[in-house]
Amino acid sequence: MTSKKLSYSDYLQLSKILDSQSLQSEKKGNLVHDEMLFIIIHQAYELWFKQILHELDSIIDMFKGDYAQEENTGTVVARLGRIIEIQKLLIDQVGILETMTPMDFLEFRDLLTPASGFQSVQFRQIENKLGMDADDRVRFGKQRYDEYLESNDRRRALESEKEPSLFILLENWLERTPFLQFEEFNFWESYQESVEKMINDDIERINENTTVDEFARESSLKNYDAIKNTYEALFDEKKYQNLLNKGHRRMSQKATLGALFIKLYRDEPVLQMPHRLLTQLVDIDQLLTSWRYRHSLLVFRMIGVKIGTGGSAGHGYLKKTAEKHSIFRDVANLSTYIIPRSTLPELPKKLKKELGFYYNYDR
Amino acid sequence: MTSKKLSYSDYLQLSKILDSQSLQSEKKGNLVHDEMLFIIIHQAYELWFKQILHELDSIIDMFKGDYAQEENTGTVVARLGRIIEIQKLLIDQVGILETMTPMDFLEFRDLLTPASGFQSVQFRQIENKLGMDADDRVRFGKQRYDEYLESNDRRRALESEKEPSLFILLENWLERTPFLQFEEFNFWESYQESVEKMINDDIERINENTTVDEFARESSLKNYDAIKNTYEALFDEKKYQNLLNKGHRRMSQKATLGALFIKLYRDEPVLQMPHRLLTQLVDIDQLLTSWRYRHSLLVFRMIGVKIGTGGSAGHGYLKKTAEKHSIFRDVANLSTYIIPRSTLPELPKKLKKELGFYYNYDR
Amino acid sequence: MTSKKLSYSDYLQLSKILDSQSLQSEKKGNLVHDEMLFIIIHQAYELWFKQILHELDSIIDMFKGDYAQEENTGTVVARLGRIIEIQKLLIDQVGILETMTPMDFLEFRDLLTPASGFQSVQFRQIENKLGMDADDRVRFGKQRYDEYLESNDRRRALESEKEPSLFILLENWLERTPFLQFEEFNFWESYQESVEKMINDDIERINENTTVDEFARESSLKNYDAIKNTYEALFDEKKYQNLLNKGHRRMSQKATLGALFIKLYRDEPVLQMPHRLLTQLVDIDQLLTSWRYRHSLLVFRMIGVKIGTGGSAGHGYLKKTAEKHSIFRDVANLSTYIIPRSTLPELPKKLKKELGFYYNYDR
Amino acid sequence: MTSKKLSYSDYLQLSKILDSQSLQSEKKGNLVHDEMLFIIIHQAYELWFKQILHELDSIIDMFKGDYAQEENTGTVVARLGRIIEIQKLLIDQVGILETMTPMDFLEFRDLLTPASGFQSVQFRQIENKLGMDADDRVRFGKQRYDEYLESNDRRRALESEKEPSLFILLENWLERTPFLQFEEFNFWESYQESVEKMINDDIERINENTTVDEFARESSLKNYDAIKNTYEALFDEKKYQNLLNKGHRRMSQKATLGALFIKLYRDEPVLQMPHRLLTQLVDIDQLLTSWRYRHSLLVFRMIGVKIGTGGSAGHGYLKKTAEKHSIFRDVANLSTYIIPRSTLPELPKKLKKELGFYYNYDR
Repeated sequence: MTSKKLSYSDYLQLSKILDSQSLQSEKKGNLVHDEMLFIIIHQAYELWFKQILHELDSIIDMFKGDYAQEENTGTVVARLGRIIEIQKLLIDQVGILETMTPMDFLEFRDLLTPASGFQSVQFRQIENKLGMDADDRVRFGKQRYDEYLESNDRRRALESEKEPSLFILLENWLERTPFLQFEEFNFWESYQESVEKMINDDIERINENTTVDEFARESSLKNYDAIKNTYEALFDEKKYQNLLNKGHRRMSQKATLGALFIKLYRDEPVLQMPHRLLTQLVDIDQLLTSWRYRHSLLVFRMIGVKIGTGGSAGHGYLKKTAEKHSIFRDVANLSTYIIPRSTLPELPKKLKKELGFYYNYDR
Repeated sequence: MTSKKLSYSDYLQLSKILDSQSLQSEKKGNLVHDEMLFIIIHQAYELWFKQILHELDSIIDMFKGDYAQEENTGTVVARLGRIIEIQKLLIDQVGILETMTPMDFLEFRDLLTPASGFQSVQFRQIENKLGMDADDRVRFGKQRYDEYLESNDRRRALESEKEPSLFILLENWLERTPFLQFEEFNFWESYQESVEKMINDDIERINENTTVDEFARESSLKNYDAIKNTYEALFDEKKYQNLLNKGHRRMSQKATLGALFIKLYRDEPVLQMPHRLLTQLVDIDQLLTSWRYRHSLLVFRMIGVKIGTGGSAGHGYLKKTAEKHSIFRDVANLSTYIIPRSTLPELPKKLKKELGFYYNYDR
Repeated sequence: MTSKKLSYSDYLQLSKILDSQSLQSEKKGNLVHDEMLFIIIHQAYELWFKQILHELDSIIDMFKGDYAQEENTGTVVARLGRIIEIQKLLIDQVGILETMTPMDFLEFRDLLTPASGFQSVQFRQIENKLGMDADDRVRFGKQRYDEYLESNDRRRALESEKEPSLFILLENWLERTPFLQFEEFNFWESYQESVEKMINDDIERINENTTVDEFARESSLKNYDAIKNTYEALFDEKKYQNLLNKGHRRMSQKATLGALFIKLYRDEPVLQMPHRLLTQLVDIDQLLTSWRYRHSLLVFRMIGVKIGTGGSAGHGYLKKTAEKHSIFRDVANLSTYIIPRSTLPELPKKLKKELGFYYNYDR
Repeated sequence: MTSKKLSYSDYLQLSKILDSQSLQSEKKGNLVHDEMLFIIIHQAYELWFKQILHELDSIIDMFKGDYAQEENTGTVVARLGRIIEIQKLLIDQVGILETMTPMDFLEFRDLLTPASGFQSVQFRQIENKLGMDADDRVRFGKQRYDEYLESNDRRRALESEKEPSLFILLENWLERTPFLQFEEFNFWESYQESVEKMINDDIERINENTTVDEFARESSLKNYDAIKNTYEALFDEKKYQNLLNKGHRRMSQKATLGALFIKLYRDEPVLQMPHRLLTQLVDIDQLLTSWRYRHSLLVFRMIGVKIGTGGSAGHGYLKKTAEKHSIFRDVANLSTYIIPRSTLPELPKKLKKELGFYYNYDR
């Protein structure tokens, strides 16, 4: 076939795509109308998972290289942006499944046993490539998630666990942020003063607040002790290591400081794209959470607190993962240490220049 | 394989679904990253088209039977509701394709010639099954849409043209609305008085309005002449036939009166579901229009006013169809003749009872 | 002024509406551009809260009367539907506030102390009128929510606590469901058989499932013990009272059975609207939760885990309420006891007739 | 009052905001429940219009200054982004008004005469500040839009017409794009070759396409003649002036070339923000169009083709403005001249450096 004759249907291989819906209820001699929707929506999910993997793989590849990353940052940001758009669609897509009544779902649910969305290897690959820590996964029983997969799928899932994840590559990239080692750069000192002032103002406000009782005050003050501690740890290698050991932090101290610098000076030209990138990763985390949450509500609507088709814990399991499976939480947590714009330490001229466009300093 | 061992991946035939993405740019030795998105989004569209057809076929089947339709109306409404949810998703889905830059699209666009979305037989089937009139179609050149399809697809498209469409079946169903032939039912007379009062009040308001000039007044009054004419035609067989002949109306007079009755007495128990059904059909029309419009904006963003990949007129063609391809416009147009709630003629007791629940009249 | 001269601006009282934005930062001599957004978005929220209260009050009034409620059900469903549309907008509206950077927010945040969204009396009225149980409220410290309000607002909030809430009125209405007391109606027996079969099938499946370990099996089986217990309690007055006493249930046994009957026979004409009403109440609950959750994410993005402007616990408090403040959970929980459509007990002819349209049984 | 005691309700001036809903139907002694929604939704629109004006004014101010604009571009992009988020909300907001039935609207519609959304001075200011050309406005009769406004509002609207609009300031800013005058920069020549190749390939494809008839071919070729003409005019002062005179173009040749350069080299660091800015302006145009279109559908649903409350032409007027009132169409139209990424002329090293970060060329 020459490309001259390429047809829409051949290009999209529609003969395969549209011939892949085989209803179990029909096979069993009692066709249930709504099973078609159940199949098609899951196939659409898997198509989009493939697209997300296509983007993720390309992003990971770009992060791996050692050539100047700035040239890639724009592309990375564009592709993460695409993943985010897809995630929003996947969340909205749940609304279509909600047009199925529980009574209709129960009509074919038993025929699907033990197949389960739990077995989507592409979804596991997405989690792993993003950087889900295998130890952070909510377990169902004492088994690992991969033990529910067929051998071929299991191999692919485990491979994606071993490869350097976006989390790891991001950490390396942030550690390389060059502006942190700037000569005579005492930026962190003035920053620390601002943070301390902000925190102390808050503590004062708590102590002066007459509308809360002793119990509430104590609990607020305790919270601020914790804030102070983790904040001090940011600048103290030992304390930080301690947080890492306890699992309270996952990202290295150096990378975290790099991320904080980017968040604070986000408006400087060189840092605009890196800042968007960090924001996007937190967005991706939150959208994964929203998707799991919306999914868990759907499962609850369909089967209540009964078990899922694969013997998975259904609604409860999904709700737990929605709460626990956050990957870039160390980046998200930095918002506690943002300071008012007007108290932001001024950058030394030389550094300011480094962060700017060539064009502006050229004359 | 027994159902005991049914796996997620087998159930969804993922080996076929996820092996159907073959990039033309890769075949030509110069892989373009974004072509994957182009393929997958169109495959997702086609999956959803299949689902819409699945719903449409079942709805048409239910409308065809002569057993008491009330039992089916709830199901029809639920399935039309599902089609609407899918349509909303398809519109949002365009947003994902918008993450592709025109420069990247142009990189592989020429490789796709002459394949084109114009060749989606499923989309044509949806239009035909809804009741698109072949004569209303915007032509590209002097050829019919089906002449661009491959022989097999063409046959399927033409078949869907010949079968009774939802439009035709709806028309029959509306003509059978039993309450229109109610004994001594002079409802239409009092209704006509209300409409005339409403229209005459408007005309008076136009004549008294000092803020518009003569030209605007003339044009408003002309508009009201037209309103009056088409309104009178509703109750005059000859005049109505004239509108049909000229193509100003498509639905029979009797069916139109049935629809109007349903719209006016939408709160009566028996009419609630039929009213939702009519509203849904207008929604489906508008969502098709929105999808075409959003699609035409996307094409414009990608190629401007240049031609589409299949030699189709691109943006211009899509914009035109967005404006012209309305199927249930006669139902939508009834809104001109809705009257204020308080001027709605009271129904005779006997009819009111007929429209109610058995339970309420049983004691 | 005569109505002839009514202007858009007078009608909407725009001179007041658009003159109500007074920036604290400007008063303090240092205008922060983004404070305008902060004011306007909260004013828009309060406008919509007023609209929700307008709908809720009218719904409560309709539920209070003792005239045949069927005539009102359509209107109630329409107005609940409007509340739901407003809630969706309120959730999307958060996205606009997300365009503000934390650094800009911190610039004027301290000027707002101790004002706080915690003090929105309209929001408290909405919660109370829906039927939030004062004892279920997440406390901040040992104080009640109303102790943070100014005297006038406090009085209004407490009043709304005392009036019959939508929850109470719904409970009464469900208890009156007439079809439950149908003569010789042994429907519940056959229903119980279906549920037991469904539950036992699930338990068998758990026991046969070789892919889970002992721990997971035990935990699944425990879950099913609980399901069986609460299910048996549905039909056992004493056991049910026990659940009520422990706070595991809030809605009366009789009302719960009424709701279950409606959920199961939702397709019968008389029950269609009541079913939509029940679904809407669960939707309203979930949308309140989603709004709180999205709001808590925003607060986290703005101030991290620091305290809110009114001394409230900020992100943590909002997250907790998102999880706990469910009002119609007993209705939502019924999904556990839904059975497959094909196992639904057939209704006795006489009852079937009672649930139908007069029209169909008239000939 | 000291700021210590600032309450939520005082801060937001809720006593004014929540006391500004006065129903005409209530005044006339016959309260219509749904009129409240009509008032509140329009008040919410006006609040958001005020916010849009707040952002627009600050953007126009930043564009006016002659200090280095790069420092502002990030802020401008952020604030345009906020306007876009608000526009999306305003479109969704229409969905709430759609919960009102036409019959209920007609119940109070006549009481509003002659007030009309046509009289929203804030909306006119938004259009004017964006740069709507007074001559492009769709007229209702022979009167100008401002003649429908009250004297005070009229003065404000006309003032906003006279001030330099965002369109004018953008044009100036684009004309100043420094990289266009680069020494020995023969970029446009190679670009022209790429465009010509692309266009000629398309023409060849049209001529070779055997699936279209003579008529379609002629019309396609005519379209390409037009494309070629306007494209040549881009580089020919006289021809371009001719397009301006005929009203086919509105933006100066120099500014248009600046915009084209930015669109083509959008990935270069210095051009990333300007490119987003251009994209946003086209988005704002399209969202205005979508809002008008959605609004016109709503009006059609409410009153059909009858006149609006202010004597305005209702649905027809809104539909026309949706099609004609585009401000940044010259920027949108550039998509016709985008070329495939791989044919983009390479920039001379010196220029490439100018467009880059200082940091990268510093060593």
